[in-house]
Formats: sequence, structure tokens, C-alpha cells
Amino acid sequence: MSDVTFIGGGSFGTALAIMLAKKGYDIVIWDRNKDILDDINTLRSNTRYLPNSIIPCNVKGSGDIEKATKESKYIVLAVPSFAIRDVCKKIKGSLKEDQIIVTIAKGMEEESKKRLSEVIKEELYKNPVVVLSGPSHAEEVANDIPTTVVVTSTDMKYAEQVQDVFMTNSFRVYTNSDIVGVEIGGAVKNIIALASGICDGIGYGDNTKAALMTRGMSEIMRIGIKLGGKPETFFGLTGMGDLIVTCTSMHSRNRKAGILIGRGMSCDEACKKIGMVVEGVKACHTFYELKNSLGVSMPITNSLYKVLFENGIPKKEVSELMRRDKKYEYYF
Amino acid sequence: MSDVTFIGGGSFGTALAIMLAKKGYDIVIWDRNKDILDDINTLRSNTRYLPNSIIPCNVKGSGDIEKATKESKYIVLAVPSFAIRDVCKKIKGSLKEDQIIVTIAKGMEEESKKRLSEVIKEELYKNPVVVLSGPSHAEEVANDIPTTVVVTSTDMKYAEQVQDVFMTNSFRVYTNSDIVGVEIGGAVKNIIALASGICDGIGYGDNTKAALMTRGMSEIMRIGIKLGGKPETFFGLTGMGDLIVTCTSMHSRNRKAGILIGRGMSCDEACKKIGMVVEGVKACHTFYELKNSLGVSMPITNSLYKVLFENGIPKKEVSELMRRDKKYEYYF
Repeated sequence: MSDVTFIGGGSFGTALAIMLAKKGYDIVIWDRNKDILDDINTLRSNTRYLPNSIIPCNVKGSGDIEKATKESKYIVLAVPSFAIRDVCKKIKGSLKEDQIIVTIAKGMEEESKKRLSEVIKEELYKNPVVVLSGPSHAEEVANDIPTTVVVTSTDMKYAEQVQDVFMTNSFRVYTNSDIVGVEIGGAVKNIIALASGICDGIGYGDNTKAALMTRGMSEIMRIGIKLGGKPETFFGLTGMGDLIVTCTSMHSRNRKAGILIGRGMSCDEACKKIGMVVEGVKACHTFYELKNSLGVSMPITNSLYKVLFENGIPKKEVSELMRRDKKYEYYF
Repeated sequence: MSDVTFIGGGSFGTALAIMLAKKGYDIVIWDRNKDILDDINTLRSNTRYLPNSIIPCNVKGSGDIEKATKESKYIVLAVPSFAIRDVCKKIKGSLKEDQIIVTIAKGMEEESKKRLSEVIKEELYKNPVVVLSGPSHAEEVANDIPTTVVVTSTDMKYAEQVQDVFMTNSFRVYTNSDIVGVEIGGAVKNIIALASGICDGIGYGDNTKAALMTRGMSEIMRIGIKLGGKPETFFGLTGMGDLIVTCTSMHSRNRKAGILIGRGMSCDEACKKIGMVVEGVKACHTFYELKNSLGVSMPITNSLYKVLFENGIPKKEVSELMRRDKKYEYYF
């Protein structure tokens, strides 16, 4: 009998599993990769995605997705954005209505351009869906470094339940009822983080990156408000907070991929080298099309699109970004 | 005959002097420290404050403040905030009305709690005053790293003149007519940078710092709007942009001082070790009193005040900051 099931044994899922296990919950992690499960069950470690943390005994790895999802009150979807619909289809049959789905993925569904909570709701329409997001690198969460995140839902009573489960002395969980703003902020910031990484990779400095992040924040706001998010959400933990951590931390795989591209690798080479999903690449594609269809100005997304998918030269694109603006400082 | 005179041979002043000299302007730097002037004139280097940059021949050091200020069209005040009124008094007698004062200092006058442009205007009421601010570490400016800043004034035609003088291919100057917002943002961000440094010094991670910076941004906004600044300014280069660079860069002396305090030094010891003015210490004092008299909530400033001036224990203060907030995410 488990309390919380994680679908996906990536770094953030594993970190949260460790945290909840320390709090006393019984945890199951399902992953399609048997090696990860074996590592968890025998080595008490996720050697691939979170090698420096010890996994407590009340975390169990399971390869049986039906059994893993059957009992737990909370099902945490800890897979990349592209896999969300698939795992929903996989667990659909074994779920009961009172099980609460928590998603910690950040991104949009590429094809449909829907937010992940919308995708989940389409597949698992009987279950409550809660989104957890914010500036929370896995390595730090696993080590009890003070971290703050936000939970949101279309029905906030479920968000409050998730808040109670996940809250610890070093992991502060806030509620925010703006589900659109939380999800859009979490998705777009990966685009800006990739672009920031490219800046770093080229060898530009902190001044350049600060300018890019400031402009990036306006892009998040413009598209976010257009899609129905609230301005104050974008200035909160899931917007500005997550943007800062993703653009400046060496833990960020989006930033790391950007650095490699800035140094001359192609997008594909960089993603291969990172070895994990780089959400910013997919987000760039999605929001490039969204901004075009909605008529929203997103010059950083535009430039990044050229670099990632049209052989644009990073240095030329950054330089054009720096020069394109009017001489009066404006943002919105 | 010089074009631009810098009062003060600190790091940022010297960096701007180098930049303008490369653009072809004749520059004079005045400093009360004769060693700095000798270094500039003989070694072509500011060994104390900007040791890794070569100073072009059209930058001259001068110990005669009257002569140095007499001829130039632009007088750049490049001294710490506490010295602004003094240098104004010193140069008052030799100025003509058409000389434009540019201030690059960030802070407030501690005693009067006035913005620096107000202080300058009190002393040099006949001269136009322009404020230049933004995310611009000296070391990077001197090395032509792409940088963006903002100029503002109570009469924007002077700001536009300064924009033309300072604009280069790698140093982009924007105008913004919100002089209050620009100056308040530049002053308060040093408080948050000190606090961020303390977080780093304690050993907390990127997650913690991102949360602190997000909350810090709200503090800047709350006090800034109360004092008459515009919200959009705080989300621009001189607000969020400068906050990011000051909190995350190893060039920032405010952050460096915070790191030392987080590791156990007293405020005085840390400032002594830095060897340059740590504006955040003075700003903390000023805004602590301002927030109390205006009734504005600034919890980070409050906690920092305890650490700096009342022997507060950094770890305890950060921990209380993390726990004090309501469970619903709110910012304004």
C-alpha cells in the first residue's frame, strides 16, 4: 500500500519522492526503464538522474504501472511534456475517481498547443488535476535546501490537499488559483533559459544576460496575458522566480543545452549531449507558432527559433536582439 | 579641452571613461586619490579598481577639480552616494549653466532620504541632471560586453543628449522618463543583493535565492510605487534587470559582502574586506527608516537590518523569512 505514486523516475520526481519518503509517506516510483527501478530497489540511488542522493527504504521502484497506480491517493506525473498524454492513456484504466493527479512537468503539448493540465483533463476527465511548479532544482530539493513552489488547480480544494502533503520545513508550498498563468510561465521560461545559455556559451557577460532575462520576462507576460494568465502570477515564483533559477543555475539542463549551442553545437547535438529532454526546444517550437497565430511579439522566441531550427547564427541573433529595440525603454 | 569629466575614479566611472575614449571623446578623470591618477597617467591602468583594462591615451587623470570640471560639456558624478553632496559643493563654483550633470551612483542620501538627483539639484540647481542606471558591471562594460542601460531626467531632452554621447554598438542606452522609479530601483536592489549574498554565504541554493529575489522584487515595487515610481519601470532594466545582475554576478560587491556576512563576518568586517563602498548597507538603513515612516511592508529589508545592525543571526532570519508568508501566493 503506497501513499504517493510517481510516474517517471527523472530527477525532480525522484527528489520529491525522497522528500516525501523522509516525511513518512510510502512511495512507489514507476518507470519504463528497468535499470532505474533496479537501482532504486537495490542501490537506493537513482544513479542516472540523481546520483548524489540516497533513496529511503520507503520508496519502491515498480515496473507494473497498473499496480503502481491502483492504490495511491496521489499520482504524480513526472514525465516530460511530450509523454504526458501517453502515460495518461496508460493509467486511465486502473484509476479511481478520487485519486488526485499532480503534474510537475513544464511545457505544452506540441501538436495541440494545449497546457498539460488540459491534456490530462482530456484523458482523465474524472480525476482532479493539480499543477505543481516553481523554482525547484531537483538536486537542491533532495538535499533539503529551502525551496518554494506553487500549487494550482481548477478546483483549489485539491490544490490545498496537495499543499498539505508536499509542505515541509524546507519545501514551502503556496497556492495560486491562476492555473493558466502558472502553466504558461513554467513553459515559456525554458525558452528564455535556452537563450540565456546561448548568451553564456558565446561568452557574453552578466550584463547581457540580465538584459535578455528582463526582455524575456516581458515575453512571458505578453503571451501569458494573451492566453488568459494574470500579470501578478508572472511576477511570482512560477514566473520570475523560475525564470531566474533556470537562467542562472548550473543545474538547469535548458541553460546547459543553450551553452553548448552558443559554443557551436547544433540543437540536436546539444540535446543528445544533455541526455535528458530539453523542454525549451519543444516550447520554442510551440510558442513560435502560438505567437504567430495570436499576433504576440516575442522577439527572443523568434531569434531562438531561427537558431534552433533554421541554422541561425547565435551571435548574429543576439546582436540583432540587442539592436532591434526602440530607444525608449518599453516592455508591455 | 575635454568632452566628458568623471568625478571619481572608481570601477564603473573608469569603465565608462574607457568606453567613451574609445568612441573618440577626450576624457578627464578627477579623483582625490593621487595614486589612482598617477596610475592612469603613467601606467594607463586603474590598478586599484579596474586592474584588467587598458586606459586609452585620451583619458587623463587630474587632481585639480576646478580645472577638471571647467571645460567639459558633461560632468559625470562617479562617486558613492554618501559623497554626492560633497562633490557637488566642490564643483559648484566652477560650473557653467549649460554643463550637464550625469550621475551613475546608486543609492539615497542617508540623512535626508532624498534621491541622489534631488540632492544634486539642491546643490547645482542651475544645471540639468541626468541619471544613468541599469545592469552594467564595470568589468564587462570596459570589455565591450553587450550591455543595456537607461537614462532619465526631469527634462528628457538632456537625457536624450546623454543617450547620444554614451550609446555604442555594445552599450545600448534607453530613455525612460520615470526618474523616481529608476533611482529607487537602483537603490533598493542593493539591499536584496546583500540578502542574496547572505543566502549564498550560508550555503543555500539557487532555489532559495530565486525565492528571495522574487520576494525582493515585490519589496522594490511596494516602496517604489509608494514613493511615486511607475510599476513598469521596476520590471525594466533598472529594476528587475539590475536586481538579477547584482544578485547573481560575482562582480557585485554587494553580493560579495553578503557572502562574507553569511559565512560569519560582521557587517563592518565584510565592508572592510571588500575595500569599496557597499551601497546596500547604507540603503538598508535608509529604507528601513523609510518603510517604517511610510508604513510599507519590506520583510527582507527588515531582516537584513537585524543582521547588519542588531547582531541578528543570518540563518535564523532567512529561515523566518521563508516561513512568515501566508500560504496563498501573494505579492503586492
